[in-house]
This record gives sequence, structure tokens and C-alpha cells, in this order.
Amino acid sequence: MTRTALPDLLIEPLVRAALIEDLGPSGDVTTEAVIAPELRYAARLNARQAGVISGAQLAAMAFRLVDASLQIDVLRSDGAQVTPGETVMTIAGSAASILSGERVALNFMGRLSGIATLTAAFVAETAGTGARITCTRKTTPGLRLVEKAAVRHGGGAAHRFSLSDAILIKDNHIAAAGGIASVLVQARKAASHMRRIEIEVDTLAQLDEVLATGGADVVLLDNMSTADLRAAVARVAGRLVTEASGNMRLERIAEVAAAGVDYISVGALTHSAPVLDLGLDF
Amino acid sequence: MTRTALPDLLIEPLVRAALIEDLGPSGDVTTEAVIAPELRYAARLNARQAGVISGAQLAAMAFRLVDASLQIDVLRSDGAQVTPGETVMTIAGSAASILSGERVALNFMGRLSGIATLTAAFVAETAGTGARITCTRKTTPGLRLVEKAAVRHGGGAAHRFSLSDAILIKDNHIAAAGGIASVLVQARKAASHMRRIEIEVDTLAQLDEVLATGGADVVLLDNMSTADLRAAVARVAGRLVTEASGNMRLERIAEVAAAGVDYISVGALTHSAPVLDLGLDF
Amino acid sequence: MTRTALPDLLIEPLVRAALIEDLGPSGDVTTEAVIAPELRYAARLNARQAGVISGAQLAAMAFRLVDASLQIDVLRSDGAQVTPGETVMTIAGSAASILSGERVALNFMGRLSGIATLTAAFVAETAGTGARITCTRKTTPGLRLVEKAAVRHGGGAAHRFSLSDAILIKDNHIAAAGGIASVLVQARKAASHMRRIEIEVDTLAQLDEVLATGGADVVLLDNMSTADLRAAVARVAGRLVTEASGNMRLERIAEVAAAGVDYISVGALTHSAPVLDLGLDF
Amino acid sequence: MTRTALPDLLIEPLVRAALIEDLGPSGDVTTEAVIAPELRYAARLNARQAGVISGAQLAAMAFRLVDASLQIDVLRSDGAQVTPGETVMTIAGSAASILSGERVALNFMGRLSGIATLTAAFVAETAGTGARITCTRKTTPGLRLVEKAAVRHGGGAAHRFSLSDAILIKDNHIAAAGGIASVLVQARKAASHMRRIEIEVDTLAQLDEVLATGGADVVLLDNMSTADLRAAVARVAGRLVTEASGNMRLERIAEVAAAGVDYISVGALTHSAPVLDLGLDF
Amino acid sequence: MTRTALPDLLIEPLVRAALIEDLGPSGDVTTEAVIAPELRYAARLNARQAGVISGAQLAAMAFRLVDASLQIDVLRSDGAQVTPGETVMTIAGSAASILSGERVALNFMGRLSGIATLTAAFVAETAGTGARITCTRKTTPGLRLVEKAAVRHGGGAAHRFSLSDAILIKDNHIAAAGGIASVLVQARKAASHMRRIEIEVDTLAQLDEVLATGGADVVLLDNMSTADLRAAVARVAGRLVTEASGNMRLERIAEVAAAGVDYISVGALTHSAPVLDLGLDF
Amino acid sequence: MTRTALPDLLIEPLVRAALIEDLGPSGDVTTEAVIAPELRYAARLNARQAGVISGAQLAAMAFRLVDASLQIDVLRSDGAQVTPGETVMTIAGSAASILSGERVALNFMGRLSGIATLTAAFVAETAGTGARITCTRKTTPGLRLVEKAAVRHGGGAAHRFSLSDAILIKDNHIAAAGGIASVLVQARKAASHMRRIEIEVDTLAQLDEVLATGGADVVLLDNMSTADLRAAVARVAGRLVTEASGNMRLERIAEVAAAGVDYISVGALTHSAPVLDLGLDF
Repeated sequence: MTRTALPDLLIEPLVRAALIEDLGPSGDVTTEAVIAPELRYAARLNARQAGVISGAQLAAMAFRLVDASLQIDVLRSDGAQVTPGETVMTIAGSAASILSGERVALNFMGRLSGIATLTAAFVAETAGTGARITCTRKTTPGLRLVEKAAVRHGGGAAHRFSLSDAILIKDNHIAAAGGIASVLVQARKAASHMRRIEIEVDTLAQLDEVLATGGADVVLLDNMSTADLRAAVARVAGRLVTEASGNMRLERIAEVAAAGVDYISVGALTHSAPVLDLGLDF
Repeated sequence: MTRTALPDLLIEPLVRAALIEDLGPSGDVTTEAVIAPELRYAARLNARQAGVISGAQLAAMAFRLVDASLQIDVLRSDGAQVTPGETVMTIAGSAASILSGERVALNFMGRLSGIATLTAAFVAETAGTGARITCTRKTTPGLRLVEKAAVRHGGGAAHRFSLSDAILIKDNHIAAAGGIASVLVQARKAASHMRRIEIEVDTLAQLDEVLATGGADVVLLDNMSTADLRAAVARVAGRLVTEASGNMRLERIAEVAAAGVDYISVGALTHSAPVLDLGLDF
Repeated sequence: MTRTALPDLLIEPLVRAALIEDLGPSGDVTTEAVIAPELRYAARLNARQAGVISGAQLAAMAFRLVDASLQIDVLRSDGAQVTPGETVMTIAGSAASILSGERVALNFMGRLSGIATLTAAFVAETAGTGARITCTRKTTPGLRLVEKAAVRHGGGAAHRFSLSDAILIKDNHIAAAGGIASVLVQARKAASHMRRIEIEVDTLAQLDEVLATGGADVVLLDNMSTADLRAAVARVAGRLVTEASGNMRLERIAEVAAAGVDYISVGALTHSAPVLDLGLDF
Repeated sequence: MTRTALPDLLIEPLVRAALIEDLGPSGDVTTEAVIAPELRYAARLNARQAGVISGAQLAAMAFRLVDASLQIDVLRSDGAQVTPGETVMTIAGSAASILSGERVALNFMGRLSGIATLTAAFVAETAGTGARITCTRKTTPGLRLVEKAAVRHGGGAAHRFSLSDAILIKDNHIAAAGGIASVLVQARKAASHMRRIEIEVDTLAQLDEVLATGGADVVLLDNMSTADLRAAVARVAGRLVTEASGNMRLERIAEVAAAGVDYISVGALTHSAPVLDLGLDF
Repeated sequence: MTRTALPDLLIEPLVRAALIEDLGPSGDVTTEAVIAPELRYAARLNARQAGVISGAQLAAMAFRLVDASLQIDVLRSDGAQVTPGETVMTIAGSAASILSGERVALNFMGRLSGIATLTAAFVAETAGTGARITCTRKTTPGLRLVEKAAVRHGGGAAHRFSLSDAILIKDNHIAAAGGIASVLVQARKAASHMRRIEIEVDTLAQLDEVLATGGADVVLLDNMSTADLRAAVARVAGRLVTEASGNMRLERIAEVAAAGVDYISVGALTHSAPVLDLGLDF
Repeated sequence: MTRTALPDLLIEPLVRAALIEDLGPSGDVTTEAVIAPELRYAARLNARQAGVISGAQLAAMAFRLVDASLQIDVLRSDGAQVTPGETVMTIAGSAASILSGERVALNFMGRLSGIATLTAAFVAETAGTGARITCTRKTTPGLRLVEKAAVRHGGGAAHRFSLSDAILIKDNHIAAAGGIASVLVQARKAASHMRRIEIEVDTLAQLDEVLATGGADVVLLDNMSTADLRAAVARVAGRLVTEASGNMRLERIAEVAAAGVDYISVGALTHSAPVLDLGLDF
């Protein structure tokens, strides 16, 4: 499947900063000390585990920013499933350049492929239902763009990106604003026509109040039992998009999806995914 | 125990960038829509799991950068152990400001406390031995400074920070430079008096070659069985610092530590630590 | 009316860059040459025309960034209407500092108050209707945040901020994607639950196709006659939010608003508003 | 006429920042959703009004920064006069790239061509005299370099760029420094040999004091009647360069120019020029 | 004598970058290892040589940026002459903070005071003449603002700051533009009323051509013998400002100044001044 | 001899900033005024003194950043010795571009080649001994990377780069930490296995205490007489690396080197090296 790459204008600063962080203030002293500048290598970036690739665009950019003359071939691009031992990318050219860029390339790909792979595991649990897996704002500071892309590479859906691009009313907002009816009226008045409104509810009674008030587009069903989720979907009856969240462990997803919710949001996708093991072989 | 904070000059750019990322280009539209500017709150940032705190300095800075008039008290500072329900920090002042800074503060603390907590678990396994737990360069791009600090908060030791500050000769360097003897001679010639040299070996035969050649300060015993680690320590006989790495799962640490190595480096500390659950209560 | 200020984290870089641009590489040589450092002034920033204020927050920040010891009082804050001669802000302290910050403060306030004032004139034309005035992405490069805020200060509504935060399908997209039905299906499939979809139509026939296809939240009625706008509103019958755009001159707004559209978007608010005349008097 | 382009080193940061502002934090979601990555377009950037082009260099750079593989041909470069319908630039290549860069390219060109066009209208009024039209520091924060270039593209002359590069003594400086004689002595003492001194006068009496004191290179005749301007030119008798400013509406320029002044400075060129209408046609 | 400080807005980025460079990516590991956080010190920054101070503003800012709670007293500010052993500044507070900021503070002050001191030595040679010492663009990349200020602190005069703020026609420009007469006509046509024009001549014949052509404000008499300088001053007869340059060693300055030139420019002030010895005593 | 270039990722920001500083906010007005855009030149960058080249990489990059179409040939690269008149680099292409980049290219090369040349003079004095010349942290703020490289180009050795990458305990640290024994114990406890420890001593008695305590890798023999240096080397007897510092004038180096120390550190290499005279000839 063809996937659109992220805009280079947005990711180049990330990759550049990561390389500068890893080079340190005076450069790669090991490579400088022991690698002949004229030595040339062909390297393979291989998966050592099965999973879903994300970050190949950043890894390729890392090698290019270290040395524009490196020859890079991306064989399995972002969103592709790989098997253990499969080659994701080949890099040929100056050995010194490849060694200097290796760690940053792998750090990006390992982390992001870990997220994509975990997302894919959650998505697999929703098979046969209409539920979609999505993420939260619990992302690594500085990496939200690429972590949210990793969720999409794993088959997940986008959520709002930042506090700017949609209204999401949480329990603290409701309390501060004087209750559900009051907060929804204020929100609808402030929101322009291009902004969606989502509101969190913890109980079916709160859900009823949301439905009675109107003004919301999406309801976040937080920390509910699966039975309550089923009841909530029934009461909503298609009038709102439904999103379940809170304690969404992998083993519970199939049941939650079967309850009929539209979206299931999972913080762990971005805050607790283990790395996917990838390595460079020469 | 008193711990030295990280220099504000180095962490402020990180925190500022994270806040700008989360605010998005036009600010917190939800809070703006539904929270009265004059409303004041007292919030508690509580641990919801047992663990070791890291990132409190960054969280406090996040709230201060959002609103310098917030009153912030750090009750459990970086390196402290917490129990479920324990309050780490109190924040009082504008409700809107607290809500706008909450996610960034929690994202930093959750991730870094997760690293500190996992490190502490590894450190506990070394009790009664001289072995120290340390980390690698497998850190999140952009966050190396604070992730390495989190390892120290969990009781781990520092490793080199970047490619600039020590020579670490890996298998690919050895191959490219013509073998162990050759690479060590080149490295010693290039290294100044302020730079340590570490070299990776995979076998006892390689170790013998390192010992015979001289010139190294530290030897990295990579992917060895515990029996081989024991043999390696015996052959080194104190002439080099020893560091074990590769496949260092938690359940194996006690045995590796007992083998007599000086350091055990664990990539998972920074690349695969799950988040520590923390939350803001009003 | 209390209005929420823009986040300092987002506007300080703008103000700082503007001051550095105006100071030039070696500072204010005139003030340095002829103003005694110890001379103190009390200055009034006065409106010389009637209008709506915007940019007072930036102007006050400009003076503070030049000299944190200046005493600044904002008498008429962003969104306030002023009459000729009315004082918007008083600034007291070092004369040299006030003179060095004056131009940047006035450049921000003049331009932004010009936008707010022009917006207010458009808003006045919609009195007695439900129509709201809004702006476009035809903003000054680098100033979108503050120009969109100026539109709100003048009584206008927000539109999407950037290409990231909503889907707006224009004629070129429709052509490229194979027609209205096809484009709406693709857009709905790609859009997550937190993102609105707007689609541009130039004719009533296109509108019918949009209504028949479904999947849009908002329809942009572009370059239509007032009669067609009336007809479009009737056909939509509340199923979509309607936005009129194209050739929306001030003298036509009352008639367009009366046609029943929900929003009227006006590029001129940000691309062609004349400055509001303001000045500093000592 | 060949015109020198602005240094890419100075304008690239502007264009890059504008693109990042418009893309927003997660990129062009509309194009990503509905435009096939492999679709290719040939587009024409056409004038829809008569005017003078400025900003073509920036627009071309915007498209190149979005996608270095776009084929861009600038047919009418900065400073050229165009007629309605005339093609200024052609852009060929990825449709997605062209659509993503379109708004930034047009925002720069519309605004800057508006300034160039208004300048040309003022310049036309000076025909047959020696007077030159020039601008002020009343520019858009962040865009001074390109707005001052737009004035030159319209036939205007440069003025000082920032507070660093010449001494311009205004009424407030005179008052603070103890009068004209005193201020001129101080200024001449502080100014090195490479810096010009200009002083503002509001009356002929002040002008006499300037002439009597000496030390100025240029006199700014502020808010004078045309009769007074004529008298001022006569008294100066070529000893100083003369610049008229204040209330310089287009309809008055011919008469002011005929009064014999050397320069006429017009704040409106940069603070109130309406956009020039340009558009992209596929 | 009261001197105006440099704008903090312009120098803070320099000082901040220097501190970050010296701290390195992980901070001051020595101080962190061995200095108790609560230890407090009172330190004196003392001159160890006689000279003229420059950079005290930057040094004080460096300490403040490391730790805003440090108590800093500047006893001898920029432009002051000091004797060996004299205290320039006292710093009291956290010992760790003082030690971490020390090197950057001294690096700025040593270098800049070296420039000021060398300038003062050149200025002393001009006593009793009207000649002023000035500098060139041969400054350290990144430090032009503060190095040019150091020249003024030593009693020297400003020259143009950058390529933007005056026209200086050198031999290569003359050759490229078709000779002196041609180049002056082009320059005068391009220069606005706020920009001075200086032209370099190597011979008296060239000087005659400059005088005959007109259009210059300043003439740069390059690499001339003192006899030729005297002759040049006579021929100019006050019609132009004269500047002597080229091979201006200290021992020759008195004679050159006596020749009657207005300015003597000395590249060595900024490119070859030895450091002034200053140190921190606890 | 082949030398490894500095990473472009680290030096490009320096060169770019230097060019922007020298261009000033509106570009090279002289070249713009008098040089025809189509004029082409071939220029030679020549040494006018004998010395060692450093900064050729930066100079070449400066020309390329001004104009990527310039043809640049580096004939004598960093570390090469040159004789007066020898051509270091040829630059061919747009005359305007060459003239605009000239000063920055020369400012970098002159300063850095000055450092390399002075270093080479110190290195020459150590001939026949094992002593190596090294530098300190007394570098120009912002230029440490390239100044430390210049020392290596002149034959010197690296020292620690920043406060992050090694522990260097100075007299003030010793005093603050309670004496030599105490400070070494603390330092060894804090230092990880990848970090060297150096400690400064001023007397042989202090040296004895260092030797008795253990824990140091390197001893800095500060401000000792040559006799004491000899005695110190004897007492150390190869157990530590020795570094002599303090008052290391060129005329004393041979004697100090003969005393048997391993390293001699010289602050003057970076803080007081006069420029190497280089120029551009057309």
C-alpha cells in the first residue's frame, strides 16, 4: 500500500537534532581514530524480530544528513510488516559515515517500529468489528509527530494532535465549568465550525446528560466496564461518535470492540511500547 | 540524599519545546473555552504505582514556564522512592495554567520515572556484589540528557554520553581496522590523555588478544554466557574494567553480577521501560 | 468582557524576533548617542483613530523585553473599542528603553488593531442575523497566530489554523481526486473522529452532489450570487454548516448574512486591512 | 533590467518558517487524504490584476523547499510589471507538493506585490521631478527585509534598515536631549565617519536652527504644508538632503515632489498596501 | 564616564550559547562530583595585568544565567582602566554555580579586555592629533557586536558593522566595475540618502580621480607611506573624511596621526589582540 | 597526511551564522551596487606568511553557502604547511558571490591558521621528547570545536572538550571539597568507568598526597619550576600521566619537554594567537 511520507520540512529538524546529540560536541572520536576515511561498506539494516516498520523515512534521512553521498535503498517502507532477518534498508558508501549515523537511525526505527508493532497487535484484536484503535497525547516530548505517524503505520487512527486542534472536555474541565450542561454550552459557543467537541463521561448518568444537552460530536467513555460500554453504545444510538478509554489492555480489546464503540484509545501505544529489535549488519 | 539538579540552561529548551508541541500553534482551545481565567486550583501530582521518581525537575519547570505565578512544591524529588498514592508535587494557582501544563509535566515524569524504576529493579539484583548497572546510547532522540539522568536517579551509573567523549571500539570497528591489535594501536595513538578506550570482545580468545596488546581501559564482554563472563573476569584479573552487555534480562542480572563484572549495561533501561503511572488530582 | 490572553510561550519568540530585527545588529545608535541613560519618561500610547484594539499584549511584552523595569499599564486591552485620543497603555521608566521599543510596539498594534477594526466593521453588517464573520489562511507569513487572534478581537470567529487541523477540500482537490463523490469518500475514510470536513462548491448542482454523497460537515459556497446563496441555504436545510466566500466586500455583507449562511469568510481581513493609527506621546 | 536577488541565506529562514506555520504540526491532511502521491500537475501562477511583481524569489523558494523536484520557471521576476491574466511563474511536478506550497507562495507574493504596486503608483506621481519615494520602519514584524525590497521593486529608494545603521533624530529625541543644537552636537560626536545623521523638524524655525548648527546630513521635514516644504527647500539650498514625511497621501505627491524635496517617505507603502490578487491555475 | 550597555536582547543569545558550549551535553561533572550543593562562596574577579575592561556586562550575565540567585557586583565596568590586582567584579552565592560559570565569564572578559587594552594603546599614540582609531570587519565570527564594543571601550571609533550598512568600494570592486569614475557613479546612484560611500585608493593619482569624480564621503588611503598620507590630506583639503589603513603597527601610529588623517583603521585590534589576564579568586 | 574533516552537521551552523552576521540584515550593498551579476572571476586564496593551514574546510563551506555554483578547489587542506605566496584554495564563479563570502572565509582561516601555526611552533620545541602540546578551555566563545581542531592541525593533542567529558579537579575544587584525599575519593565514586580524572597540584607535597591516595589518572603540575617538574616526573614514575601547565611560554617549552612530562598545556594557543595573514587575489 502506498503511504504518504511525512513532510521533510517537519522531520528534518528532529533528525538533525538527534544526530547532533549523538555526535556530541566534537564528533565521532572512535570512527575518526580507527576507520580509514576511504573505506567503503555495504550495510543491511535488518529486522531481528517480526513487526511493523516505522521510522524508515527518518533513518534514511539520518544517513543522508551525515553523508549525502551514501546510497540508500528502502526495501520495506513505513507501514510494512517484516519477518525476523528481513532487510529493511541497504546503505552503501563510506564506512565512517555509516558507523556515525547507525545509532540515530536505529534509535528512531526501533522506537517507532515498536509503537507500530504494538498498535498492530491492538488492531488485530478489533478484527470483524467497526472499532478503530487510536492513541492519546501521552507521547514522548518532542516526538509526537513521528509517534502519531507510527500509530497510523500500525493501522491505528489519528486523534487530535495538540491542545489547539479540537475541544476535548475532561472531568477536571467539567468540574471547573459547573457541570456537563454548562460546559457544553460554553464549548459550543467558543468552538468555530471547523472544530469538533468531545466530552468525557464516567457514568451512564453523565452520558444521559450529554445526550440531553447536545453540542458534542464525540463522547469519551472513560474507565467503564464492558457492560456499561455496551449500554452506552445503545443509548447513544449513533447520535455521537463513541470512544472508549482507560485501562485498555490488549487482552480486553476484542471484548471492548465487540461492545460496539467506534474508537478505542490506548495510551500505552506511545508511552510503553517496547522497542522493535533491528540491527545493522555489514 | 541530596542530588544535584540538571543545569536549567540545558533542560529549559527541552521543556519549552515540549510545551509548544503540546499547546499546538494556537493554544489550549478547550481550557480557553470553558475555564474562567480567574479560577484557582490546588492540585496534587500523585504516584499511582510504586517506583522511583525522575523528571520532577522538568515537571516543575513545565508548570513555571506556562505560568510563573504558579506555586509549586516538590515533595519527592528526583531519585526518591514513592508508594502508590504518595504526593510528589503540589501545584497551586490558575486552574487554566495547571490544566494547560498538566500533560507535558506528566509525559516527562511518567517516562523518566519509568526508566528510574526499571533501573532500580536491575540495581536491586546486584545487591551484595560490586557490579553496577549502566545504560547505553539507545536513548530516545532528543532526550538523552534526561534519560541518562533517570538511570542515575534509579541508582545506575553513567556511561559515555555521546560519540565525542570516549572511544568505544565495537565489532564493526575491529573488522574495519584490521583486527584487535591494529585497532588498539590506532586508538591509543589518537586518544588524548583525557579519553578512555573501551573495546568489545565476543570470545575469550579476543579477550586474550586485548590483554596481550594493551592500550584499553575497559573491555566490553558482549553476549557471553555467564560461564564465559566468569572466565573473562578471571583472565582480566583487575587489569581492565569489565562491562557485560547483550541480552541482559532482569532475571539473569543476579547471576551476571555474581560473575564478578564491574558494570552491566542494559539497553532496555532507556529503550523499553514502561511508563510509571502518575496523575494530577484536584 | 474578559478575554483570554495568548500563551506567552507562543508569542514571546515573535516579539523577541521583531525587536532584534528593529534594533539591528548593533543596537539603537540614535538613542545611545543622544539620550542620557538616567532620563526617565512617562509615555502614553494613544489611539489617533476610532477602532478596536489588538496587539496590546504584544506591545506590552515588547516594552518588557527591552527593559524589564518599565512600568506598563494596559488601560484598553485586546478587543476593546477606542475613540480618537483615548489612551491604550501607559509606559513609564527609562526614556531610552521606551524609545527603543516604540516602533515594534506600534508596528504590532497598528497592524493587528487594523485587522480587528476591519473585522468589527464586517461584523456590524451581520447584526440581527445568525451569520458570523471569519477569516482565511491568507495571513502574513509568520504572524498567523496573532492575526487570527485579531480577527477574534474584532468579533470574528476562528477558522482552521493550518493545513493540519481540518480537511478543507477545494476545487483543485475535487478535480484531482475524481469528483465530489469520490473525494468525500476518500476524505471521510482518512479523517479521524476529531477532524471536520469542509468541501467547496461553486454551483447548486455541486451542492446537491455533496448532500447526496454525505460525509461533509461544512460546505463552502464559493463565489455565488446572493440568490444562489439563498437557494443553497434552503437546500442544505440545516444538514451542513454553510460558509459563504469569494468577493465578500463590506457593502455586500448585510445581504449575504440575510441570505441565511452560518459563516462568511473574508480574506481581506488579514491581507488588506489598513493600519490603525496609534502613536506614543511623551 | 537585471535586478540582484536577495541573499538566499537571509530569506530561506523566512520561507521555511512560513511553510512550517502553514503546514501545521502534522502536515497537509487534506492533500494527504485525497491526492494520489503519483499525480503530476502543471500549474500557472497568474496575476489577476495589473501591478508590479515582488516576492517571486520567495514563492519559487517555497515550492522548492516543499519539494526539490518541482520544475519552476519564473517568467516575470521581481520588479516586473504585469497585466491581468499574465503568467508570473509555472510550476510542474507532484500535484500534492504544489497544493501544499500554494498558500505560502501566494501569501508572500500577494503582500509584497501589493507593496511594490502601491510604491509604483507613488513613484509615477513624481515623474519629471528629482524626488524619490522611500519607505519607513513601519514594516510588518519579521518581514522588513522583503518589504523594503518590495519598495525597491516598485521603484522606491531604500531608507535606513534598522536602528543600527544611521542616526535619525526625532522630536522626542530633540526634547529629551535639550534642543536641536545640543542634540546635533552630541550626535556628531557619537557618530563615526560611516554613519549619516538625519534630524526631524516641524517648522521653518527649527530648520533654521539645524542649518545654523550644522552636523546633519539630511533633514526630515515632517507634517509641513506644501508651501512650507517649498520654503524649506529654498532655505536649505542644497546644503542638506531633504526628506518630506507625514500625511503623504497619493493625491498630494505630485505637488510635494514639485516643491523640490529630494525624498518623500510614505509609511503606508508597507503598513497599508492592499494585496495584489494572484492565483494558481491548474 | 557613563557608558551605555549593549542591549541584553542581542547579547543574551551569545552568552547562553557560550555557556551551553562549555557545560557540554551533560553538565559540569567535576563540580557535580565534588562540590556540595549547599556550599557558598564569595569570589573576586581580579585583573592580573593593567588594562581596559570590556566584557564585564557579558561576564555578569554569564553568572546570572547559570544561577539567577548569585549576587553580582560590577566594580569596574566596561571602559574602565584597571591596575594589576584590582577587583573588577564580586560574585557571591553557590560555589557550584560560580565554578560552573567561571570559564565562560573569563573567556569573554579576557578576550574583549585584550581588544580594549590594545585599542587604548593605539589611541594613546594619537594624543594631540585629531585622528581617531577604528577597527575593521576582521572580527571573530559570531562576536562582532562585542568586539566592536570592546574597541569603543578602549577609546576607538565605530566603523561600518556589516556589508549592509554602508558602501565601501575596495580595489576589487573598482577593477570589476570599470574604474573609479564608473564605480562612483554607480554607487551614488544605488545609495540612498542614509548611506555613506567610502572608496579605497592606493595612490595619489587614484585620489585625484576620486576628487574629480565626486560622490564619495570618505576615502580609504590604503598602504600609503606617511609622506603620501600627508600629501593626500593636503589634496583632500577637508572635502572628504580620510581614513588610513594597511600595515598600521603601533610604532607607526603617532606619525600617521600627525599626518592629519581623520581615522586610522587597524585590523589587529580584533584579529590579533592578546588576552588580558584576569582570574577568579575565592 | 589524510586528516578527517569535521562533521558538516556541526560546522555548518557556525559558518551560516558568520555569513549572516557579516552580510547584515539587508545584504552586501556595495557588491549589489557596483558588481554586474553576470561578471565571473577566478580568485586565489593565498598565504602571505608561512604557517600551518586550518579553517580551509570552513572557508570552502562559506563560499558554497553563499553560492552553491562556485567552483572551489582546496589545494592545501587543514594541517598543511604553506609558504608565503602559496595558493591554498581557488574559487571560480560569480564575482559578486566571491566578494560577498571573502571576509568570512578569511576571518575563519586567518584565526584558525594562526592557532595552528602557533601550535606548530610549540610542537617544534618538543622534538626528540615524548611530550605533547595540548590546549585548554580558554577558547573563543562559540568556536571551541574549530579552535581545538586547529590545535590538532598544528600537531597538538586534544584535551577535554567541555565540563561534561572528564573530571578535572582544580585548586578551588580541592579547597571546597576538603583536601586532596577527600576530593579524590568523591570523584572516583562519582566517575563512571568511561571518565578520566585529572587533579591539579601546585607542590610536590600535594603530588605525594595524590599518589598516596590513588584514584587519579592524570596529574596537572601547575606553575611549577622546571626543577620541580623533573622531580615530579621522577616521583610519579609512570603511575600517572603528567601534564605541565602555567606560564608555558614558547622559549621555555624545550626545557619543560625535556623534564619528561607527557603533556604541556598552553592557553595562549587559543587565547592569544595572532592571525595568519591570508588574502584573496583575483
